[in-house]
Amino acid sequence: MSGIDNFWAVVPAGGAGTRLWPLSRSSAPKFLRDLTGSGRSLLQDTYDRLAPAVGDRFLVVTGRAHGDAVAAQLPQLGRESILAEPSARDSMAAIGWAAALLERRDPEAVMGSFAADHVIDDPEAFRRTVISAVDAARDDWLVTVGIEPTHPSTAFGYIHLGDPLPGSPSSGKGSAYAVAEFVEKPSAEVARGYLATGRYRWNAGMFVVRPGVLLDLLGAGDPDFAAALRAIAADPARLDELWPTLPRIALDHAVAEPAAAAGRVATVPAGFGWDDIGDFDSLAALLGGDGTSVLGDADLVETVDATGLVVPGGDRMVAVVGLDDVVVVDTPDAVLVTTRAHAQQVKQVVDALKARGRADLT
Amino acid sequence: MSGIDNFWAVVPAGGAGTRLWPLSRSSAPKFLRDLTGSGRSLLQDTYDRLAPAVGDRFLVVTGRAHGDAVAAQLPQLGRESILAEPSARDSMAAIGWAAALLERRDPEAVMGSFAADHVIDDPEAFRRTVISAVDAARDDWLVTVGIEPTHPSTAFGYIHLGDPLPGSPSSGKGSAYAVAEFVEKPSAEVARGYLATGRYRWNAGMFVVRPGVLLDLLGAGDPDFAAALRAIAADPARLDELWPTLPRIALDHAVAEPAAAAGRVATVPAGFGWDDIGDFDSLAALLGGDGTSVLGDADLVETVDATGLVVPGGDRMVAVVGLDDVVVVDTPDAVLVTTRAHAQQVKQVVDALKARGRADLT
Repeated sequence: MSGIDNFWAVVPAGGAGTRLWPLSRSSAPKFLRDLTGSGRSLLQDTYDRLAPAVGDRFLVVTGRAHGDAVAAQLPQLGRESILAEPSARDSMAAIGWAAALLERRDPEAVMGSFAADHVIDDPEAFRRTVISAVDAARDDWLVTVGIEPTHPSTAFGYIHLGDPLPGSPSSGKGSAYAVAEFVEKPSAEVARGYLATGRYRWNAGMFVVRPGVLLDLLGAGDPDFAAALRAIAADPARLDELWPTLPRIALDHAVAEPAAAAGRVATVPAGFGWDDIGDFDSLAALLGGDGTSVLGDADLVETVDATGLVVPGGDRMVAVVGLDDVVVVDTPDAVLVTTRAHAQQVKQVVDALKARGRADLT
Repeated sequence: MSGIDNFWAVVPAGGAGTRLWPLSRSSAPKFLRDLTGSGRSLLQDTYDRLAPAVGDRFLVVTGRAHGDAVAAQLPQLGRESILAEPSARDSMAAIGWAAALLERRDPEAVMGSFAADHVIDDPEAFRRTVISAVDAARDDWLVTVGIEPTHPSTAFGYIHLGDPLPGSPSSGKGSAYAVAEFVEKPSAEVARGYLATGRYRWNAGMFVVRPGVLLDLLGAGDPDFAAALRAIAADPARLDELWPTLPRIALDHAVAEPAAAAGRVATVPAGFGWDDIGDFDSLAALLGGDGTSVLGDADLVETVDATGLVVPGGDRMVAVVGLDDVVVVDTPDAVLVTTRAHAQQVKQVVDALKARGRADLT
């Protein structure tokens, strides 16, 4: 054991990433892919980032279809560290299941939930942020990590800051705040207003909390849900019986929003850059400057008067002539051509392919 | 034998078609490809169009590398109908070689030279035009077919009309004119001026002429060239010896331009639509309207808010989102993404690939 005492990482690894099709597929979602050119998948990067804080106290919650792939990418993990969901029932069920297991296993446990497919640019700053969050969580706060907005994004939810926590500096390093409320993805105008106040942070979906606190907060609103999760943890043989009865709901809605209203949520500032790589525009921004970014083998790309993002993944030459901010993604069985400005619409291709009976490509 | 008495088709099948890369390759140039979705290659379409006029009086002049492919696509031809050039020495050598052979074979021969990679929309009108051209050629004119311009193209050379031929109606069907001069590809402004006069036609490079007349016109300017061609025809064993000595020059420059200046060239009007499919913009115009044209299996294309040309040729799904007038060409070993407006720059990709040592892809 090493890292932060009794601190456990819980990594929900799900989501189809349809806006990153054809890189991300239901059979090979984005967390299994190397989207940064690091040579490691996003899941592996997530593991590497958390290992100094948790040692081997690491649980991945993923779909049964991906259990083998996760095990193959993280051979350090024992198979008991991979929780395979019988079906996708959203984040409350996934993270709650892990919480119920940890509640039984380690009465002093603090868990931190971090998505398997986000990018963080400074692992050491991340570790320091986590230490602050764990400190607050030991006082029974549900702690979220607030990302300082760099622009008025309409792609993220926001955290509205309340008062500084007692004993916390009111600003700067180590500052922690109560959360007044979580707000959904805003319009651009509303987002600009948020930034102007200086009282809003991006919600990156990172939660640090004692497992029993999380389940009790859930149980306050939905006692049956919390009881079912605890029953699964007490008797794993009941998983297939109880799992299909769990509500499909995000942790944000099931716990974080009502807990914020009840004054039970705190936030600590992130000292690092963060991105959820939600679409190809985001990926292009992450990878590159003003010219052409290549994710993959640059020898397979030839551009003439072009800028944007090219992903040569089909072992073929990709040539782009006379297009700005273009996105070209080549894979063995599908090629996508779009622009950074239209990155959100890529999901429509996935929908159309499913409607045409080509779910095999999605 | 059938068709027009003593009329022979000579089809030069050459040119790399680099502006149609990656559809057209040096190993599989555009004349071997189906670019119209007809199910037949441009060469096969050319054969089909000419067969009613010439029966089996058909000669293809092509590079040795393509002899087998031509024979495979046109199994009706005996191998003696395929003239395999030892090297590419431009159109005067190619067409002149065929002329020298025909001069010996058939004293009454009239030959018509038609490129293997052009598109003509009305085979019956084409046949009627050819009949008019052959009539004039029997009177020892070098006859070219003038295409009525539909727009002030800067991609074609133009034919400047002189006086009507004696006995020819001065306009309409059957009208034939002396050619005052051939002019090179003009600027857009000059082209607009040409169209305003009504006295210019596009030069489609179609020539109908008695073989001896062609060789004599050549010999007037370059006696050695004409003599070498006749020597090859007289003794095929000398081909490899003499061929490398032939000047690299287009028939237009070697014969047509000086002959026009000497008052020896006539033109007949084309009663058909014509295109040389010079680049992807031209191909898109040929295939389609305002939406998305697909050359190939439309089931392999998915578009969202996109217009242009998609060529799915790699057995993979091609998805295009949010681009207008885009060109996407998928092949097993290369994919091209450009726009109709940048179609001319595709050649730069081919040049760049050669410079990078990837001539295997060109």
